[in-house]
Amino acid sequence: MVPAPPSPSAFTFSEDGILACLAGHFPQTHPSLLLGRGDDCAVLKAGRPLCVSSDLFLEDIHFRRSYFSPEDMGHKALAVNVSDLAGCGARPLGFTLCLGLPDWVDMAWLDCFFGGMAALAGQQRMALAGGDLSRCERLHISVTVWGETAEPGGFLARGGSMPGDSLFVVGRLGLARVGLHVLEAQGRAALADWPAACAAHLRPEPQVDAGLMLARAGYNARPPALMDLSDGIIRDLPRLLGLSGELRAGADGQPPQQNQGQNPGQSQGLGAAILLPQGLLHPEVLRYAQEQGKNPVHEALLGGEDYALLGSCAPDMLPSLHAAIPGFCSIGTITAGGGITCNNEPLDRLSGFDHFEAGARGKKAD
Amino acid sequence: MVPAPPSPSAFTFSEDGILACLAGHFPQTHPSLLLGRGDDCAVLKAGRPLCVSSDLFLEDIHFRRSYFSPEDMGHKALAVNVSDLAGCGARPLGFTLCLGLPDWVDMAWLDCFFGGMAALAGQQRMALAGGDLSRCERLHISVTVWGETAEPGGFLARGGSMPGDSLFVVGRLGLARVGLHVLEAQGRAALADWPAACAAHLRPEPQVDAGLMLARAGYNARPPALMDLSDGIIRDLPRLLGLSGELRAGADGQPPQQNQGQNPGQSQGLGAAILLPQGLLHPEVLRYAQEQGKNPVHEALLGGEDYALLGSCAPDMLPSLHAAIPGFCSIGTITAGGGITCNNEPLDRLSGFDHFEAGARGKKAD
Repeated sequence: MVPAPPSPSAFTFSEDGILACLAGHFPQTHPSLLLGRGDDCAVLKAGRPLCVSSDLFLEDIHFRRSYFSPEDMGHKALAVNVSDLAGCGARPLGFTLCLGLPDWVDMAWLDCFFGGMAALAGQQRMALAGGDLSRCERLHISVTVWGETAEPGGFLARGGSMPGDSLFVVGRLGLARVGLHVLEAQGRAALADWPAACAAHLRPEPQVDAGLMLARAGYNARPPALMDLSDGIIRDLPRLLGLSGELRAGADGQPPQQNQGQNPGQSQGLGAAILLPQGLLHPEVLRYAQEQGKNPVHEALLGGEDYALLGSCAPDMLPSLHAAIPGFCSIGTITAGGGITCNNEPLDRLSGFDHFEAGARGKKAD
Repeated sequence: MVPAPPSPSAFTFSEDGILACLAGHFPQTHPSLLLGRGDDCAVLKAGRPLCVSSDLFLEDIHFRRSYFSPEDMGHKALAVNVSDLAGCGARPLGFTLCLGLPDWVDMAWLDCFFGGMAALAGQQRMALAGGDLSRCERLHISVTVWGETAEPGGFLARGGSMPGDSLFVVGRLGLARVGLHVLEAQGRAALADWPAACAAHLRPEPQVDAGLMLARAGYNARPPALMDLSDGIIRDLPRLLGLSGELRAGADGQPPQQNQGQNPGQSQGLGAAILLPQGLLHPEVLRYAQEQGKNPVHEALLGGEDYALLGSCAPDMLPSLHAAIPGFCSIGTITAGGGITCNNEPLDRLSGFDHFEAGARGKKAD
């Protein structure tokens, strides 16, 4: 599907040279495009509704060059966006790419970066439809993806959970967090001892197939509530339940209530009772927690960059979803209030990460 | 259409606070959205084909804080993207916004920034459908826009010009370039003496209505070739004619021929004979060129950030387009080869700007 890229030495490092290198990695045509790159806009064929999402991927905020290879950066910058499509149960179709490139970038680096991104785009059959290039002090990547809703089915959203629903995840919890910590401490030397954790952080695999199967399961039934886990269950579960985030802030311009220091969900309509036995966690998460004297379940709940799926569904859907979706894992029940608990312990002593809270600035996001 | 924004002092400077401030400026619902912000993806209603485009807007590369007000930045970051939709003859529908925010940003600043952006979004009836927030060393804005193709009509693209076609522009040439130069030299004090030039640089007005009228003119006729002018006629006209840029690089991965130091278009299939009398130029362009001892027509051709439209059409379309489109201006003829000339002078002594050419780095893009 992707033509063999030309040698990077064939290009001068000019805008035209960069675009020609890119053309070697990303096909210009795609069944979902009426007009590809190179014009003011790309033109998308319309038919089924489209899901769209944008994410930033910034040097020293979201990744470090010291332990991300250029292929890793290309892969992950696209993967974190594709994960948002998976969280809506959508099939990826295409993306745009904005690149801010510092002085140290050369054509060989770009060729590897595009190669890592093109491998995932080819696997997901996504078209690169456009974008922008600029100089920048630090490497800056922003990607916008779109995909079509499942057929039969439709898109899956947050906010539709009901008391008694089963809570589930697809994918590993806390493994990417361990990867971040060991990579920060040891650099790429950590890959020898923590291969799965490092891979989870450097090369997350978005759960596209699982999202599509969940969307199809919602056809002729009450659809599952679904989201992708990017900030850890502790921050993302209240968003799934509509207790925080912009779904809750709504369009009235009123600030959402702050839950800092409170049990998220307390005094709200919905809660959750999570059951997360240690046996569900990856051996590297258990080993890391033991070495650090930490509670492995807490590490899994704090998570961050899991790019797993988190959802809820009617309990009678569980058997067929378990059978159909590799990695599908039931982790508890939605409750009518009562806050969020895990293994009968209230979650008021843990908190997730906010890029903008006082004291958070200048720290690596985790 | 846009509800009155709440006072910024109502919000803590947290991610939730920023999102709530944003919710006060940008409505959550829109006829073209099945699902708005706050989920993994927004979901777009599909029907007619969609045009999509992404652009970066970076501090000290694309704008300077010393003379851009926060409202100016909000306006221009969206306007340069909307101009790409205009260049395809599309009607704007929505956008996503990725923001990298440095430490100096506070809620009052954000409120003004969102206000400038929301005013243009409201004028163009565009929905903010999603995006991402992060910390960043310098202010970083990337926007992805989409719009639907005209009805009746379709999208307009580059590359369809034929010998004998009329070349046209809609909008001012070189005025934003003058604005950049006087703002760089004098800061906002320049607004007193150069009000039109400064406005053209700080608050470009995308030619959406003209683009839609041109698209409708292409219904039941050979459609005009069209693009938006962001890098100056000298760089953009070869792109319109398919002589440079990614349209020419194509999907074969071969590097495009370099035209540096040559007359763009020489030995290619198409050329253009531009006729640009000084009388067509804005008085501030003429005055600036006179003060600087420069040729005002060369300044207009170098342009940069004009956000005018550049196109070509069959000559028999001219009378109706002149009558229907304010600011429509015929500026010459497409030729069968012969390079590009302006007022009978070959354009081989002028060149546009490439962010990545040797020597260009570290300079302000102009």
